[in-house]
This record gives sequence, structure tokens and C-alpha cells, in this order.
Amino acid sequence: MSVPFVVQARCGDARAGLLQTNHGPVETPVFMPVGTQATVKSLASGDLEALEVRIVLANTYHLAMRPGARLVRDLGGLHAFMAWPRAILTDSGGYQVFSQKGRRKIDDDGVTFHSHVDGSPQRLTPESAMAIQADLGSDIAMAFDECPPSDASRDVLCRAMERTTRWARRCVATTPAPGQLRFGIVQGGADLGLRAEHLAEIAGLSFDGVALGGLSVGEPPETMHAVVREIAPRMPAELPRYLMGVGTPADLLVAISSGIDMFDCVMPTRAARNGRLFVRGGHINIANAVHCIAALPIEEGCPCETCRRYSRAYLAHLFRVKEILYYRLATLHNLHHYLALVRGARRAIVEGRLPEYVVERGLAGAA
Amino acid sequence: MSVPFVVQARCGDARAGLLQTNHGPVETPVFMPVGTQATVKSLASGDLEALEVRIVLANTYHLAMRPGARLVRDLGGLHAFMAWPRAILTDSGGYQVFSQKGRRKIDDDGVTFHSHVDGSPQRLTPESAMAIQADLGSDIAMAFDECPPSDASRDVLCRAMERTTRWARRCVATTPAPGQLRFGIVQGGADLGLRAEHLAEIAGLSFDGVALGGLSVGEPPETMHAVVREIAPRMPAELPRYLMGVGTPADLLVAISSGIDMFDCVMPTRAARNGRLFVRGGHINIANAVHCIAALPIEEGCPCETCRRYSRAYLAHLFRVKEILYYRLATLHNLHHYLALVRGARRAIVEGRLPEYVVERGLAGAA
Repeated sequence: MSVPFVVQARCGDARAGLLQTNHGPVETPVFMPVGTQATVKSLASGDLEALEVRIVLANTYHLAMRPGARLVRDLGGLHAFMAWPRAILTDSGGYQVFSQKGRRKIDDDGVTFHSHVDGSPQRLTPESAMAIQADLGSDIAMAFDECPPSDASRDVLCRAMERTTRWARRCVATTPAPGQLRFGIVQGGADLGLRAEHLAEIAGLSFDGVALGGLSVGEPPETMHAVVREIAPRMPAELPRYLMGVGTPADLLVAISSGIDMFDCVMPTRAARNGRLFVRGGHINIANAVHCIAALPIEEGCPCETCRRYSRAYLAHLFRVKEILYYRLATLHNLHHYLALVRGARRAIVEGRLPEYVVERGLAGAA
Repeated sequence: MSVPFVVQARCGDARAGLLQTNHGPVETPVFMPVGTQATVKSLASGDLEALEVRIVLANTYHLAMRPGARLVRDLGGLHAFMAWPRAILTDSGGYQVFSQKGRRKIDDDGVTFHSHVDGSPQRLTPESAMAIQADLGSDIAMAFDECPPSDASRDVLCRAMERTTRWARRCVATTPAPGQLRFGIVQGGADLGLRAEHLAEIAGLSFDGVALGGLSVGEPPETMHAVVREIAPRMPAELPRYLMGVGTPADLLVAISSGIDMFDCVMPTRAARNGRLFVRGGHINIANAVHCIAALPIEEGCPCETCRRYSRAYLAHLFRVKEILYYRLATLHNLHHYLALVRGARRAIVEGRLPEYVVERGLAGAA
């Protein structure tokens, strides 16, 4: 198989790359909006196209529960199901299953847990997680890993690493959907030694990309930044590098500066629904009474569909009376903010001025 | 003032007309989507433009409660507030206030009631209802009327008519916003004699249009149809005729055939949110399990944004997992269905073939 990823430019540790998928090219660094249940909450696939999104994340666990991976396969796969012609990355379901503390049982073969929908007993193994992702037909499938909590002891971290490595071998031994790429996941908590050790193990397997998992799970941002700064530059240079579930705008610029290529996070979409709207260098809370009389947009000069047409006062009204339209308009703005931030970082890498870009965006303190 | 309405074609009692407003022309017959709280639920103003909507209805009572008419005025009026450059009709708030059975007190000067938001005491009079609508800056303001329940006695109906007439005189005596049209409302329940009597009174005042109120408030459809068939043809021929709060696709064709020009109803938007999706001659319920595996669209050949791109199976999934996107996609389809139905009726009137059109649409039984 030809190499689907090329690095086109570098700026310090940061890289600008191009990832070829079954459903088109993806320029990196890239932010992937989260479409847990085969929809980026409140947005249609046409909205995502208008935002120039090239890849979204969908959730293996949620889709396996509802509507079911076989049904999605029978309907032509996830792209056809959600009417999304561009790339899709599916997580392996591991993160959701391991989040069910006290309700799941891990053994060396896999995990037994309960459906959050009807409480029915369910089981995921490396083989079944990959089979579900093959049924969904995603462009990138993630290996099934064990994600320990942020306060896990060194012993727990080590056992999770060992199990994740054994499971990773089983994942690469399965048959993917035609053209489907597969990424391995590095665990090891905040321990730099363990991270480096596990990276070496995962990088030795035949994955098409490598991800950092088990970060942004409750540890302080500085801890996460330290791991990313230390580990990202040591990840295989020829493969795409993916930091899972991260993060704030500042987190993204730290990670991009350290050589991470791919991100997903519910932050822009979830924050939008909760009233937190990103502006350069910070955010506003639309629940604040001051916005009820503000004729200005969320951010002056922002070219997003929401800012071009609607005032803070209107958004504040929709938010207060809980109108459905609020969620879409807020999500459009926050996603635009994230996508523009990362695209701007890509341009800055190509132009050799990423450090200046971080300052311009008002995020120099954290980054 | 020049006459803002002209009848361009007739077919039996039915008319095709053109209504000029402060915010553009409106071809009639016309269906006005309901935007109670300054948004047609789940849709952005751009969505309405794409649906070729020319006029929406907004709710005086709800907007007076939140965000307040003075605030809307200070922000440049309702058009600027909701970023909607086309026409707006505001109801007078009477219907909502009179629906608060047991919680409101009517006297000859107006109505005292309680806010549904915080329970605070509120008062509406003909003068204040028109002042609020002037603050909102709608293109068409409705007179403040008393809307009796469908089971009201003849005495109650008569008292409501008399009060509505006195209030109508006070409404026309107020100062409208510049260019704002004002419509009177005919009451009289299902009593054809009372309806005719009240029509004569309201038609004698200097309104720019006449509406039938107090229908579709719980009476059988046949009763409502009988009133419309009898009264609509006797409404002033030179003014737009508006049937408030009606109705099903069959109701619309009955009323158009009888000479009604304007409609509003929550049915297409509310039914969409509840899973009822209109198709030619009927509807489907997306909650029905059979749709979970259906790759076909809501209606084959339907040119709406939803049917062009999404399957019933995807909509059924979104509905079951309560994803926000469902509400928008379903609303887009149902509104398209209503708008296309009424636009088709207009073309049929112009072409002198309205009765054939009613048969083609599969609604001959009711109409």
C-alpha cells in the first residue's frame, strides 16, 4: 500500500501535511468535529461542507448501540447513512466503555459492559471493535485500547499499556474495510517514561497513524502539555499524529507546535450549546445579561454564517427561551472558530511563522 | 394610501392576488410559517429564504413577554432582530391571552392576565396591543379581539363579537408604524348568522384586510369548512382575506377554493417535531419501526433539502436518539410540503384548474 500521508512543510517541531483517505484529502493540522451519533450536534452535512470540514469523528460505541453497525452497513455504510461524502474517523468505543466506571468488567480478551440505552449486556473485543468499524466503513479506524483514569497508579497504567499493546496486535491482524486506515493508540498517563516506552511498542506495529490517548481525562492542562511537548516530537515522523479528545484553543496550539497533526474534541460544540462562544483570545457567555441588548455579532469581523447575520441580542434571546435555532447558530460559530484557528496554524507553518501566529491569536500565555 | 392588494386571477370563488408590504410583495394564496418567538422553530432566516418564504407570523404576546417590544424596537425592530428582510405579520396577542382559561380577567377596556414566564401580572388593551405591534414594526398588525372557545353559547359569542367590534374601532384609531397594514378579525363561532353579522361590522371599519378568527379551536373540521364556505365568499373582495390558525392540507384547499388568501398554522412545524411528516395525500410517522431500515427519502421526488439528501432511516435514527438535527430536517420538509401545496394552488387558480389540482393532490375527499 502507498503511503497515505506526506509532510509538506515544517516549522520547528510543527508540521503541515496531507492525508489521503478513501473520501478525499485532508490537510493537516486538522480539527475533526465530533459527530457522536452520526451527526455533529445541530448541524446538517451541508453545514459541515459550508464550513469546509474535510473529516469528522463518529462514535463506534454509540452507533453500535443505535442504530447498529449491521444496519448502517446494509444501508451502504456510514457515509451514505449520514449523507457525508468526505472523510470519517471512528473511535474504537474503548473510551466510552472504560468511562462506565463500576459498570464494566475488563478481562484479557475484551470488555463486558451495559448499554446506556437499555442496560442490556454488551461485549467489545479488539476483533469486534474493528469489525464494527469495518461495517461502518470509516476511513480511519482506531485500535481498541484500555484508557485508564487520570489518577491511575503506575501499576494500573502499566497493565493498561500491556493490554493495549496485546490488543493492538490483534487489531492489526483483523481485516479492515477496503482502503480503511488504522491508527494505534499510545497510553501511559502522565508518566513520560511509560509514554515513551509505550510509544516504541505501538510505533513498531503496522499502523497507518499513531494517536495519544488517555490525555485530557482530568489531569491539569500543564501536565498534558508536558506529555505532548515531550512525546509528540518522538512519534513516527512519517505517520500522522493524532491527539485524542483535546482541547482548548491554547491546547491545540501547544500540540500543533509540538508536531501533532490531528485533533478531535467536543469542546467547541458542547460549549456552544452551554452558551460559551469563542472569540479571539477567550470567550463570551451568552447567558450574561449584558448581551441581551447588544446589537453587535459574537465577534466583529468574524466571517461565519452566524456573525454575518445575527446579533448577540438575538442569540441571547434564543438561548433564554431555549429555541432550537440557538444551538445551530452557536455551533456554527464555535466550529468556525476552531477550524479557522487550526487552518491559520497550517498557513503559519507553511510560512514559517507559527510562533508569531500563536502570539497574534492571543494564546501566547498558554502555548 | 394606495391599495396594497390586487386580485390577479379568479377560479370559482378562489383568487390569486398580490399583497404589497413594507418588506416586499407577497403572492397569494400564501401560507405563513409561524415564528412564535422570532424564529420559525429550528430554522434560520436563511433557511426560510431558501424555502422562498415571503412572509412569516410572529407572536405579539410571546415577544412582549420575552425579550420585550421596547428592546426589539431599540434594536431596530423585529426584522433587524431576527435578521429577516421579508414581510412579518404579528398577531395581536389576544388568542394567547384568551387561551389562559381561569387565569385572565376580561373587562370592557382590556384583559388582565399572568405572564407564562414568571407569573407576573400583565395587561393588554386594544391600544397597548397595537402599540406593541408598532414597536415590533411588523408589516401587518392584527386587531386585538376576544376569541371565545368553540363550545361557547350564543350569548357568549354575541358578547365577544360586540366587544371585538368596539375594540376594533379603538385599534383603527391608534397610530400604526409607518406603512404598517392592519387587519380586523371576524368572530361569531360556528353560527353562520352571527358570522355574517360580525363580518358586516368589521368590513365597515377602515382595515387593510379581514381575518376569520375563532376557527380551528376545537370544533369538527366539517363545521369549520361550512363556516369558511359560507363566509369567505362574502368577505370584502378588494381586501386580503386571512383564515387564522388553519390548518390541514385539506383545510387549506377547502379555504382557498372558498376565496381565502392567507393562512398560518403551527401544524407543519409542530407535526414535524412530533414525527409526523407530510407526503402527498397523507403523512408518515417517522417513529414507526418500518422507517428505521428505509433507504428512501420521506417522499420520492420531493425537491426539498431533506429529501434530496437524507433517508427515512437516518431521520428515524435522529428522531429516536433525539438529535437536534432531526427537528430542522423534518421542519424543512413539512414546510416545503405546505408551501408547495399552496403555491401549486395559486398556479392552478391562474390556470383555471383548481378543482383538478385538488384531485391531483389526493385531497378531493375533504375538499
